Amino acid sequence: MTTRIVELRQGILKKNDELARELRGRFEAAGVLVLNLVSSPGTGKTEFLQLTLKELRERGGRAAALVGDLETDNDARRLAASGAPVRQINTHGICHLEAEMVRKQLEGWELGELDYLFIENVGNLVCPSSYDLGERIRVALLSVTEGEDKPLKYPTMFNSADAVVITKMDLAEAVEFNRAEAHRNIGAVRPGIRIFETSAKTGAGMEEWLEFLKEQRGAR
Amino acid sequence: MTTRIVELRQGILKKNDELARELRGRFEAAGVLVLNLVSSPGTGKTEFLQLTLKELRERGGRAAALVGDLETDNDARRLAASGAPVRQINTHGICHLEAEMVRKQLEGWELGELDYLFIENVGNLVCPSSYDLGERIRVALLSVTEGEDKPLKYPTMFNSADAVVITKMDLAEAVEFNRAEAHRNIGAVRPGIRIFETSAKTGAGMEEWLEFLKEQRGAR
Repeated sequence: MTTRIVELRQGILKKNDELARELRGRFEAAGVLVLNLVSSPGTGKTEFLQLTLKELRERGGRAAALVGDLETDNDARRLAASGAPVRQINTHGICHLEAEMVRKQLEGWELGELDYLFIENVGNLVCPSSYDLGERIRVALLSVTEGEDKPLKYPTMFNSADAVVITKMDLAEAVEFNRAEAHRNIGAVRPGIRIFETSAKTGAGMEEWLEFLKEQRGAR
Repeated sequence: MTTRIVELRQGILKKNDELARELRGRFEAAGVLVLNLVSSPGTGKTEFLQLTLKELRERGGRAAALVGDLETDNDARRLAASGAPVRQINTHGICHLEAEMVRKQLEGWELGELDYLFIENVGNLVCPSSYDLGERIRVALLSVTEGEDKPLKYPTMFNSADAVVITKMDLAEAVEFNRAEAHRNIGAVRPGIRIFETSAKTGAGMEEWLEFLKEQRGAR
């Protein structure tokens, strides 16, 4: 039984990979930098993204977002407050986004008019790791309140990431966040990965993050 | 393809349900109250459970724990510090515990010598909801740092719970936790469910929680 499931699952993943490759080609051709944001529920993806969209727009960047959730359009409404174009994807029970969902939601959007497209994945530290969405950069977010050992417990998610954003740094002292240990654990799973320490509340770390986005966009 | 997956998945769930029923019978016969703790990664299940085990033991309660994680035995080591018998289950990539994993780990344990058995599930707000482990009480945990709308976004997890424990109340002020909204959202998904507001750091809310455990154990 398990073998059959694995085989069927591999078929689905293969189809997803092919579609993701197609999407990646479209994104590259359009010159839009696409990022896939993954994290546990409650890490603060939406708050972080809201501030990122706002800051990018203030600097003249053209940014948009797709946001995945099992249910509700709360996050899309929160993100739309930044003034950026935002679309919600409801997965109705599926714990990750798939390339096909992204493709569908992009219909009618002129990708050439965008500099940045952020895809906020469903809050989950397991399911999204196997699904390529055609992004160029996968960002794993981790809040200081979650515990420093998350990268060791969810190695696939951190191993498949291209950058790590630590959120809620404003709470670091209150939760006795062990910065050195967090960096050590991230490095153990993905040596040399860029780590950003941020707070959407105080704005800490955002300059460095925005500089990284600009560099990455220029580096095509 | 999706239909086939659904059919196979239903077969697995059916098998799990049968085994869970069997386990439930054994637990009832042995007079042990079994609780299944589910939450997002980083909600503080282990810290909450550690304090619960310690307090129960100080009151003469005989408590043990099984703890599930994708990888690492960090949590088992943390829980064992309470002095209670603890066993780790590593699921190696599977995002939930299954009744069969619980059955295996219980081998050699004399259930009749236990008052309470806590099963700390894998940190995930989606996968564990479909898998009955034979528990009598499913507890969904939610930390004040995760956002008040989690019950609306993950309705199945909260809908299948018998009690909700809000953790990290010591951070409520720092994160501007909206207590009324959290209660409203939990109630929208699961009207009338018992809600405990706790802090493993200050010990707040633990008396009420321990009282509840005692009641539930007596209420067989």
